[in-house]
Amino acid sequence: MKENNCKILDCTIRDGGLVNNWDFSVEFVRDLYYSLDAAGVDYMEIGYKNSPKLLKGADAGPWRFLDEAFLREVIPNKGQTKLSALVDIGRVDENDILDRSESMLDMIRVACYIKDLDKALDLVNTFNSRGYETSLNIMALSHVMEHELIEAFREIANSPVDVVYIVDSYGSLDHIDYGHLVEKFQKHLPNKVLGIHAHNNMQLAFSNTITAAAKGVQFLDASVYGMGRAAGNCNTELLVGYLKHTRYEIRPILEVIERRMIPLREKVEWGYIIPYMISGMLNEHPRVAMALRNSADKDKYAEFYDKLTSAEVSTQE
Amino acid sequence: MKENNCKILDCTIRDGGLVNNWDFSVEFVRDLYYSLDAAGVDYMEIGYKNSPKLLKGADAGPWRFLDEAFLREVIPNKGQTKLSALVDIGRVDENDILDRSESMLDMIRVACYIKDLDKALDLVNTFNSRGYETSLNIMALSHVMEHELIEAFREIANSPVDVVYIVDSYGSLDHIDYGHLVEKFQKHLPNKVLGIHAHNNMQLAFSNTITAAAKGVQFLDASVYGMGRAAGNCNTELLVGYLKHTRYEIRPILEVIERRMIPLREKVEWGYIIPYMISGMLNEHPRVAMALRNSADKDKYAEFYDKLTSAEVSTQE
Repeated sequence: MKENNCKILDCTIRDGGLVNNWDFSVEFVRDLYYSLDAAGVDYMEIGYKNSPKLLKGADAGPWRFLDEAFLREVIPNKGQTKLSALVDIGRVDENDILDRSESMLDMIRVACYIKDLDKALDLVNTFNSRGYETSLNIMALSHVMEHELIEAFREIANSPVDVVYIVDSYGSLDHIDYGHLVEKFQKHLPNKVLGIHAHNNMQLAFSNTITAAAKGVQFLDASVYGMGRAAGNCNTELLVGYLKHTRYEIRPILEVIERRMIPLREKVEWGYIIPYMISGMLNEHPRVAMALRNSADKDKYAEFYDKLTSAEVSTQE
Repeated sequence: MKENNCKILDCTIRDGGLVNNWDFSVEFVRDLYYSLDAAGVDYMEIGYKNSPKLLKGADAGPWRFLDEAFLREVIPNKGQTKLSALVDIGRVDENDILDRSESMLDMIRVACYIKDLDKALDLVNTFNSRGYETSLNIMALSHVMEHELIEAFREIANSPVDVVYIVDSYGSLDHIDYGHLVEKFQKHLPNKVLGIHAHNNMQLAFSNTITAAAKGVQFLDASVYGMGRAAGNCNTELLVGYLKHTRYEIRPILEVIERRMIPLREKVEWGYIIPYMISGMLNEHPRVAMALRNSADKDKYAEFYDKLTSAEVSTQE
């Protein structure tokens, strides 16, 4: 089975933090790490490695600005599960990044829009030279034109990046779209490992992830109980259960859902919610839907749909 | 696009009734019918055509024992959306069934386990001779052995049944399973239209349905907001939105979700809930999970998993 080469990267804290403004206790994150480790999950993305100096509104707690000393307190006994952090272009101070040999982190992932590819590859070079595994996550692929992507592939192929992600930022892609994208990435980047980061606006995150895995994509992003911005991500528990002939064990994930995610889901929301479905269907950023969900009109779906579809018309004129 | 030959059959009332014991008001069902009609949905399954004489516990209201005079009150002005009803083996009195020319119903669907195939095909013959479109829905396909299925295909091929359904009763099948099943059904039943009825235990109902549609399956079962037993079904709103180059219009579905389904979902539960995910993953009937959800232990997932997996071992001994 091709899927046996897969690695699960759990991004509950990093992507889920977009839901609750990274309001996770140390106990929560520690519990999650040891649960993922017991379940055999390969990587845990524990937050962002951005610099508070470079990001305004820097009140979102330690998971947005990971500090090595703090990380050692959170996870005193690191297990098999590797740690990764995400960095955003223009928000990372390279002087903050230790050599991997001195760091708790194993992998640094660089997220960028395609216009910032050069800056992203500069960061990749830096992190690679300091010994980290690296990945490049080009966001909003469904809004990138073919010739831009082909041009980008040339630069990426010549970079030392280990993993290149296919990111469905808006949750708008189906199995046919992924089929085309995976083939295209494989054709132009034959020496790179591929990854997938899906969103669940149309309940396709898990199915797109396993379809991509069957085609040879190896890094599978997921989050426990699907926690992630707006509609959330592919569910870690589904992947761990599905990839059943491997080292994965679902029981520790069930326990942490029961202990941590069910109480949390009562306080903050994510998942299959109609306005997020609508933004996915329309291939749009979920920010307008997120604003709706924070308003008194949160369940006025038809009105919201009218607004988005008439706005679409006017922006095309 | 192959998908343009598809027909959506909405089974919110019939399958959703398994959630709330068919406690739908006439206003609810009428509103749903006119909404589906406005959305261009092809069929609405409005309940069961079982006989109260043949079914104990016959207190589940009119939608389980559809009566023609009552149906005319519910839907005084029938639109383009056809009406279907499901019958169960041994629970239908043939004398209750008018000729189609006198009936509000257009299609009668026969659900059976494979052991009752002969009885099911007898019913199909009767309904067909009275002018109805018919379908055969063999349940629990994931528990049927290959040689039983091949034998069944021979009988089905010789029957007048119009549509043969691939039913994933336990929500345990993935895109690879469906790929094999669709090919097998197409090979052995080249003259039959195929249908799919999926369950959402592993968040695969919609993706399996569109994957099957891309392979030529034409009758697509769905329910509004996914309402159906346990994890529920493929969501009508997702299908109507996805099959966008056709006659479908999502807005009336969004309105009825807002008006009817959101308040209902606050009172009764269905959808992606961990015990249903576990029963789907283990390819088991959801009844044990449903009992758990009605108990004080409803969120004890790990304990439930232990119970199901150790029971599996002991029943195999």
